[in-house]
Amino acid sequence: MANPGPGNSITLRVEAPSGFTATSELAAAAAAAGAAVTALDVTESRHETIVVDVTCDTTGDEHARQVEDALNRLEGVTVRNVSDRTFLMHLGGKLQVTPKVTLNNRDDLSRAYTPGVARVCLAIAENPDAARNLTIKRNTIAVVTDGSAVLGLGNIGPAAALPVMEGKAALFKQFANVDAWPVCLDTQDTEEIIRIVKALAPVYGGVNLEDIAAPRCFEIENRLREELDIPVFHDDQHGTAIVTLAALVNALRVVGKKLSEVRIVVSGVGAAGSAIIQLLKAQGAEHIIAAGRSGAIHSGVSYDDDHRAWIAANTNEEGFSGTLHEALTGADVFIGVSAPHVIGEEQVAAMAEKAIVFAMANPTPEIDPAVAARHAAVVATGRSDFPNQINNVLAFPGFFRGLLDAGVSDITPEMLVAAAQAIADRVADDELNASYIIPSVFDPQVAADVAAAVAGAAHSARTAELVG
Amino acid sequence: MANPGPGNSITLRVEAPSGFTATSELAAAAAAAGAAVTALDVTESRHETIVVDVTCDTTGDEHARQVEDALNRLEGVTVRNVSDRTFLMHLGGKLQVTPKVTLNNRDDLSRAYTPGVARVCLAIAENPDAARNLTIKRNTIAVVTDGSAVLGLGNIGPAAALPVMEGKAALFKQFANVDAWPVCLDTQDTEEIIRIVKALAPVYGGVNLEDIAAPRCFEIENRLREELDIPVFHDDQHGTAIVTLAALVNALRVVGKKLSEVRIVVSGVGAAGSAIIQLLKAQGAEHIIAAGRSGAIHSGVSYDDDHRAWIAANTNEEGFSGTLHEALTGADVFIGVSAPHVIGEEQVAAMAEKAIVFAMANPTPEIDPAVAARHAAVVATGRSDFPNQINNVLAFPGFFRGLLDAGVSDITPEMLVAAAQAIADRVADDELNASYIIPSVFDPQVAADVAAAVAGAAHSARTAELVG
Repeated sequence: MANPGPGNSITLRVEAPSGFTATSELAAAAAAAGAAVTALDVTESRHETIVVDVTCDTTGDEHARQVEDALNRLEGVTVRNVSDRTFLMHLGGKLQVTPKVTLNNRDDLSRAYTPGVARVCLAIAENPDAARNLTIKRNTIAVVTDGSAVLGLGNIGPAAALPVMEGKAALFKQFANVDAWPVCLDTQDTEEIIRIVKALAPVYGGVNLEDIAAPRCFEIENRLREELDIPVFHDDQHGTAIVTLAALVNALRVVGKKLSEVRIVVSGVGAAGSAIIQLLKAQGAEHIIAAGRSGAIHSGVSYDDDHRAWIAANTNEEGFSGTLHEALTGADVFIGVSAPHVIGEEQVAAMAEKAIVFAMANPTPEIDPAVAARHAAVVATGRSDFPNQINNVLAFPGFFRGLLDAGVSDITPEMLVAAAQAIADRVADDELNASYIIPSVFDPQVAADVAAAVAGAAHSARTAELVG
Repeated sequence: MANPGPGNSITLRVEAPSGFTATSELAAAAAAAGAAVTALDVTESRHETIVVDVTCDTTGDEHARQVEDALNRLEGVTVRNVSDRTFLMHLGGKLQVTPKVTLNNRDDLSRAYTPGVARVCLAIAENPDAARNLTIKRNTIAVVTDGSAVLGLGNIGPAAALPVMEGKAALFKQFANVDAWPVCLDTQDTEEIIRIVKALAPVYGGVNLEDIAAPRCFEIENRLREELDIPVFHDDQHGTAIVTLAALVNALRVVGKKLSEVRIVVSGVGAAGSAIIQLLKAQGAEHIIAAGRSGAIHSGVSYDDDHRAWIAANTNEEGFSGTLHEALTGADVFIGVSAPHVIGEEQVAAMAEKAIVFAMANPTPEIDPAVAARHAAVVATGRSDFPNQINNVLAFPGFFRGLLDAGVSDITPEMLVAAAQAIADRVADDELNASYIIPSVFDPQVAADVAAAVAGAAHSARTAELVG
């Protein structure tokens, strides 16, 4: 069972007999029911009764009802109301659109709107490049989804995907001052999505594709990269790849191995798996085997889809054709972006000495990290309740900050590698250990470092172009 | 020539010999060159020289250069730099996207984003109506344009239209706390625009169509009204019609005439003209003649386009077939939404006693309002530098506030009339006169009154449905 977490935090408003021990009894009962009590607030107090808000983390809706029942069973206690803090936080949505200019009088209005704005419009009509300076395009990106592969929830559609896109936009602003806007499309037709994003592009300086199912996401990304003059980033692929590479760079420092020498097994050949493999290769990894549900991808098979075909041609130089489990024997690194529980303790035990295990399936990893840690030297997951959380939040805000600052039109592998290195470098030598290979998502410097690294890579590329 | 205005305000940074009269000489020279000086700021002062920022309104770029030349001609004076305050205001755009929730720690993140957000997504997937409460949809509208008919500038395209849409969005927030987002589409294909807006709809609680050329705008509006379950409003039509009706209601109070009895001549049968006629009829006007470039629309001609055909069938009961000028003889009301200078002083002189003239072509009216006022009892324009500005800002923020508050899916004529009446009612009996038929756009109560009127009309309609 999952641990109680703040994503499932509730506040129970409870009427109880007044008396010295009332609040501690409530806390004890909630704890005995498995809840993690985080706050007790007395909101009313009378001679006979008190009203207490008991706030606690639970494991989910069913557990919340059990906690409520447990408090109701106490002598003289009545739960008046249970509020879900996650839902409360979402009432009315999580974003707003605010003016950056004051509009307090006629003069302001004459400049920001008619008649003054007409001159600004004409300046852009005459010189389209002026749009970057004179409109929101300079600092604004679209967070685009079709709702077809949202979190671990699958194809829940565009309306149900909106809370995730709002959250993502909030993170963009909070961590990197990027104005991001949710675009949740009520179509899952590849060509239509491409046409729509192209039609929307005048307002945006970049596009972040999000939670779009494979293989549609690949085609959409490739085509938009070709056909738009603003950068297009598929976070599920490249964001994950950046943070994975950052974590692996530091994990290898911990165990004293080299990227070019280690044997890496990637479980999952979807969007994230392909992107991780490409980035690892760009950074010098030479021994990679990727495995899907039907075993290792190898050049002895001809694959229908472009990604498996590319993987077959660019990994697994030995032509290994066994299962994921067999591939792990003697491997140095496991990178999982696949499904819950696809490997067990014995597979980790069979890996090389000082093995590294990244079990990133969400919300349930490929292997329980506590079990993996019995044999592996470094273990990381996508979860926040274990050490070493591999979280895209470390990458995407700063990455787009850098793209916008540099006015980039295309994303290069060098930018991805530079971002990964900047994240890895946030862990100093004297901080680095097996439980701290990746900085906290709340490290306030990460986004700025990533942005500088990306802008630097863009600048180097331009200089090289000019010199070459 | 136009008057100097704040939309053409510049700041000249000037180096001048120090001395008691330096600043007043600069101000005098700028004024002599026709500028309206609004501020003088000494930014540096030394023994021999001072540096002064001279801020003044001009009539445009050419005039700004003349003012600069005039200052440069003064003995010992050098203009170092001229900055355009309208352009300065637009640097980096006029909107930002800000989180409504705090994201300061892990618990916040767990609720606003993964893992907590997944439960909110599932709640919407199970009950799509929940999106109105749990996402930004409840308070967010799209301001949609294809850039084909922007202000008086014509077909300048989506990128050049963005400053107007940003300004509009800023006004929505400022006046009515509506979150509005610019959607500037890089296509002018009717069907594609319809498809795109439908695909974008999950994020929005309403659509404001803006600056889309006729007749495309009619088809787009009609189809979206039929095919979407959120309200669709074409501001160039209905916003203009609401404010025109509001102004006419009060102008008729000033001259003591009745809407059902007056003879009204409308110049312009485009988007705005058609909508104005519809709304005037909905409110009880019985004698309307509409004229385009080729004269009065009448039932003796068969018209290709739906709007002219509708106008022919629903106006001009006398079958008048002359010119606009001829139609004005003896008319009580002129409403111009057409082109500069289409009528002259003699046409106004030929109107009935206590005539009303609304010359709303922008930026140059159908007749100079000062000339019209020699013969008409009430004159209004779309300009801010004359009394009685008929400005859509009075309508659209409050109108959408009301639509969103009431959760309206369709706009009815009753809502438009209610909004117009609410605006008219903001001018109290003891305030009403020929120079004050319409409230100021900065009247802080207008938007709230319009919102309440629209929500009230929506409520009445629902009650009638239930009772009926």
